[in-house]
Amino acid sequence: MIRLAVIGAGLMGADHARIIAEELPGAALQVVCDRDATRAKAVAEAWGTEAASDPEAVIARKDVDAVIVASPDFTHAPLSMACIRAGKKVLCEKPLSQSPLECRDVMEAEESSGGRQVMLGFMRRFDQAYVEMKAALDQGRLGRALMMHNFHRNVATPAADFTGAMAITNSAPHEFDVVRHVLGCEYTAISAFQPRRSDALVAPVVMVLETSSGQLVNIEINNNAAYGYDVRAELVGEAGSIAMNQLAYTSADHAMAQARAYEADWRGRYAEAYRRQNRAFLSFVATGVFPASGSSSWDGYAAAVVAEAGVRALKTGQRQPITMIAKPEFYK
Amino acid sequence: MIRLAVIGAGLMGADHARIIAEELPGAALQVVCDRDATRAKAVAEAWGTEAASDPEAVIARKDVDAVIVASPDFTHAPLSMACIRAGKKVLCEKPLSQSPLECRDVMEAEESSGGRQVMLGFMRRFDQAYVEMKAALDQGRLGRALMMHNFHRNVATPAADFTGAMAITNSAPHEFDVVRHVLGCEYTAISAFQPRRSDALVAPVVMVLETSSGQLVNIEINNNAAYGYDVRAELVGEAGSIAMNQLAYTSADHAMAQARAYEADWRGRYAEAYRRQNRAFLSFVATGVFPASGSSSWDGYAAAVVAEAGVRALKTGQRQPITMIAKPEFYK
Amino acid sequence: MIRLAVIGAGLMGADHARIIAEELPGAALQVVCDRDATRAKAVAEAWGTEAASDPEAVIARKDVDAVIVASPDFTHAPLSMACIRAGKKVLCEKPLSQSPLECRDVMEAEESSGGRQVMLGFMRRFDQAYVEMKAALDQGRLGRALMMHNFHRNVATPAADFTGAMAITNSAPHEFDVVRHVLGCEYTAISAFQPRRSDALVAPVVMVLETSSGQLVNIEINNNAAYGYDVRAELVGEAGSIAMNQLAYTSADHAMAQARAYEADWRGRYAEAYRRQNRAFLSFVATGVFPASGSSSWDGYAAAVVAEAGVRALKTGQRQPITMIAKPEFYK
Amino acid sequence: MIRLAVIGAGLMGADHARIIAEELPGAALQVVCDRDATRAKAVAEAWGTEAASDPEAVIARKDVDAVIVASPDFTHAPLSMACIRAGKKVLCEKPLSQSPLECRDVMEAEESSGGRQVMLGFMRRFDQAYVEMKAALDQGRLGRALMMHNFHRNVATPAADFTGAMAITNSAPHEFDVVRHVLGCEYTAISAFQPRRSDALVAPVVMVLETSSGQLVNIEINNNAAYGYDVRAELVGEAGSIAMNQLAYTSADHAMAQARAYEADWRGRYAEAYRRQNRAFLSFVATGVFPASGSSSWDGYAAAVVAEAGVRALKTGQRQPITMIAKPEFYK
Repeated sequence: MIRLAVIGAGLMGADHARIIAEELPGAALQVVCDRDATRAKAVAEAWGTEAASDPEAVIARKDVDAVIVASPDFTHAPLSMACIRAGKKVLCEKPLSQSPLECRDVMEAEESSGGRQVMLGFMRRFDQAYVEMKAALDQGRLGRALMMHNFHRNVATPAADFTGAMAITNSAPHEFDVVRHVLGCEYTAISAFQPRRSDALVAPVVMVLETSSGQLVNIEINNNAAYGYDVRAELVGEAGSIAMNQLAYTSADHAMAQARAYEADWRGRYAEAYRRQNRAFLSFVATGVFPASGSSSWDGYAAAVVAEAGVRALKTGQRQPITMIAKPEFYK
Repeated sequence: MIRLAVIGAGLMGADHARIIAEELPGAALQVVCDRDATRAKAVAEAWGTEAASDPEAVIARKDVDAVIVASPDFTHAPLSMACIRAGKKVLCEKPLSQSPLECRDVMEAEESSGGRQVMLGFMRRFDQAYVEMKAALDQGRLGRALMMHNFHRNVATPAADFTGAMAITNSAPHEFDVVRHVLGCEYTAISAFQPRRSDALVAPVVMVLETSSGQLVNIEINNNAAYGYDVRAELVGEAGSIAMNQLAYTSADHAMAQARAYEADWRGRYAEAYRRQNRAFLSFVATGVFPASGSSSWDGYAAAVVAEAGVRALKTGQRQPITMIAKPEFYK
Repeated sequence: MIRLAVIGAGLMGADHARIIAEELPGAALQVVCDRDATRAKAVAEAWGTEAASDPEAVIARKDVDAVIVASPDFTHAPLSMACIRAGKKVLCEKPLSQSPLECRDVMEAEESSGGRQVMLGFMRRFDQAYVEMKAALDQGRLGRALMMHNFHRNVATPAADFTGAMAITNSAPHEFDVVRHVLGCEYTAISAFQPRRSDALVAPVVMVLETSSGQLVNIEINNNAAYGYDVRAELVGEAGSIAMNQLAYTSADHAMAQARAYEADWRGRYAEAYRRQNRAFLSFVATGVFPASGSSSWDGYAAAVVAEAGVRALKTGQRQPITMIAKPEFYK
Repeated sequence: MIRLAVIGAGLMGADHARIIAEELPGAALQVVCDRDATRAKAVAEAWGTEAASDPEAVIARKDVDAVIVASPDFTHAPLSMACIRAGKKVLCEKPLSQSPLECRDVMEAEESSGGRQVMLGFMRRFDQAYVEMKAALDQGRLGRALMMHNFHRNVATPAADFTGAMAITNSAPHEFDVVRHVLGCEYTAISAFQPRRSDALVAPVVMVLETSSGQLVNIEINNNAAYGYDVRAELVGEAGSIAMNQLAYTSADHAMAQARAYEADWRGRYAEAYRRQNRAFLSFVATGVFPASGSSSWDGYAAAVVAEAGVRALKTGQRQPITMIAKPEFYK
């Protein structure tokens, strides 16, 4: 039985606690930690476990084998570093950091520790739709990849003061990462565009990325799409194309229309992906072998570099080159 | 230019007049005839042609080359007979007659006239979906046919006193005919079932038909489906299956759902089928060659025999055999 | 931790062992039992647990809290009885028995034991599509239910000597049960039909069932559908309709067609339903409260009665009444 | 009866001849003209009409009321000018000209003639999908428009030496025009991108256009998509979205997949749009009133300006402003 600590008891941390308790045999939810003790307690009690409020202390506990970090974004890198220092494997929610430099600090700490310690929560790599897209490509059924078209739509932004830059740094990294994973290459340039809304809400951001293999990647981040939570993707190859379907179990015929419901957020759509990801993390903890589809510190660095260039592209209205350090041997 | 008379200026007659005027080069709408002179005049004026009220006189006119009969059902056979006597080809709306005997009278008159004169308005044979189903079967892509599932749903019945028997005699013949056409065989037995509604409206009728080649044909006639006009069909073979899609040009994402609109009646869905059918009728008039996919007096007789047995099956609650005369050489 | 024994190490038993080990926190796979010791050992070793070959002894073990029965059909009732005698809750794969009388024996034993002990593996009740259909009905969005159309298609029969009667007794019970569950009523009559195949394979069986509330239920069981594993269902109400969608994560555009893959069997399609069902069983074991959507011995009896009448309907070619004993207070 | 001349007897001219003969009552196919007399004769004979080889002479004929120009692109503007001079209305296939200056010459000639004479063959404005998209927007169901996503895919280029610039000047104008029509605004800037193919075929071109109302328009032109003829479009508004469906009459279940066929070219997909467009042209000829959804010389000029800027954007790799003259009163 692997004893896990969940750090952060917000929406995502609570969901990780639930996944461990309800869907992850072989794992025990040892402790739930949040700076806000009330929040920690509420989640801990729901699953009959212990609450705590000091993450560093929790990471150090002898009865904690591994850690899931789902606390606020700015704590991700420091807490991952603490896990590395404690010699404990960590599943850290994305982003590792919005600063490429801070990501490199984590990479260096990890490399110095002598082995892989950090897995990032880019769960889409485990989603069946992307798995099928990658398989179609790898098996040669589409010919060589030419383009990916990606659409990320939320009902509404979490906060009213959400900006286009935040669409790039907070929402787009899921797209940046999964596309890199499916295509197996890095980005070399990014352009960003934004239409105007008639109200005060943040408008969609449309990005065109170029890759080292000569592909184009189009990404729409529409955080105020209003009509539903809706993620779409299409991979276009030289010989054919593969696209994600809208998933709904039923269609209703009523009042002169046939309708399929959208969900309000990502939890239903990616429930299976989280399950698979967290099972892969358990296996990582148990065996020390980094999961084949897992996202590493290097992938966190890549996402940060792209997001940073994307923000620059949006602000300047100019196509921006994307420059990354050479991939360390350690991450190959 | 083939000069056509349209007899009957109701919904269907008016649509035939429109098709001739707007979509059928090579045909002239010579006269529109209805016992109700006002109705005839309204349709005739819409297309700048002449109105009349005596169908027999219209059929006899020298400046009328061929006739489309879209008057009330009970007049179909007598008016078709009048056309045969006048030596004029007729496109007669279904049913030819609800009486198999009266259909046989038409068949005999037609045969005595020495050549084919009567084409029936079972336009679904010209609908692309059924054309593709028949082609898939004939080309062997499905293996041998095993079953057809057919669903016929209207928003509401035209009249409040519509009965289950009328569902079988008025709505089901389209299904009876097109299935015979696609499968290329005759029916040997029919069973009929009806659920109970909680209100005074006519409940759906579900029929199971057996064919001479050992297939099963399931037909649901749901005249008060409420949600939209919706016709569905699936042909199941030993090696695969083919089904009609719901046709809609667009889907709308709104208010937490993705919706496709249904139409209120059949006119949009079968516009192309009517166009093709009426073009085939023109060609029949011009060349004397009966169209390959056309529905003949024999097909009208077959529909009448099945409907009669279906009503018996519904009333008795017993499976009824379907017995037809041998197919005359003339119709082979 | 609830310690479970799995009895039967065939396809279904092996899957239950996997579900416990990989997806069911709170449960321990204590022992895997099969008359065929080699088979038991293979499954037990895969999950690092113990193998056994005597089911009665396994049921009696003190370190077994509850039992999952997935052995051959004829053993279901006797082993469930053994569980009842041992005071252990059992999740028994369907059918409870093909004999209504034997089902009644189980019901009596259960009632005598003073509390609910038996849950049946009709997992479709936990499938999201049926959950949505039932919710739409219960919330009044469809108006009163009129009909259900159900299609059950397998790629091929497990054995070459599969018969139409076996389609009714082995495959159809899933449909019989889930429809009763969704509609909330009992069957009163059944008719059965069968088309002819051109080869030696078993032909589809088409059934029309009538319910105590006046609904019609149409069921096609097509065990040699060839093209894929495909289950469909539609619930038609007086005000609208709801249908199960074909679920596929992706669509591929290739070679002049857009294609969605079918699966080869039910395990992918119903993975989530099994997970939910087995979690509900654990909760039943832990709390003693029978799950709201669970299938009981009574439901097993109902399925047996319907199947028996269905076989009679198929053999006689006559509509058969369905007569059940009054529902015992114990099962209400 | 309006007597039409068709100039150009290639693929598109032959189709116009067929539409007139088979689907356009009120029009007579008076003459088919092509510089290649053999080609002209073949099409003319198919419909029992006269052939000619001198377009200027045909335009001048007294027995020709109006003209359809479907000859090579570079002849469109001169022949349209000839029609204006002859006082005959012309339906000219797109593009009017690839030169904005030449388009302005036509506009000036038309304005000098005192009335509208030129309608362009941007038939997509008459396609039901775009009609529904425009209606949804105009009726306020989507809120204000934010983006359009457009995908234009052909099986293969007509010629092996097709270039990215030709994708912009030959294929994209359909997208440029119909988006302007649906959104009701003009473009202000264009960026263009191109992935690399592994072979000698022309790669797709991806464009991002900005409009005067602050919308973004994304267009993919993929002339070697290989898998089928496939046009897609989505209009995203502040409150919802509407998208074109893939239209196919049937789906086939076979060999572990459900498949819908793609067509090889645009003729099936846009048959109804051509019919509606050509009927609108007849009405224009008959009444002198320019059709509400018709595309004018001004629209031809707009398409040429955008295409020219698009080619510049592709060649320079820089976002290009789009500058048009003020819209003449004559075209408002």
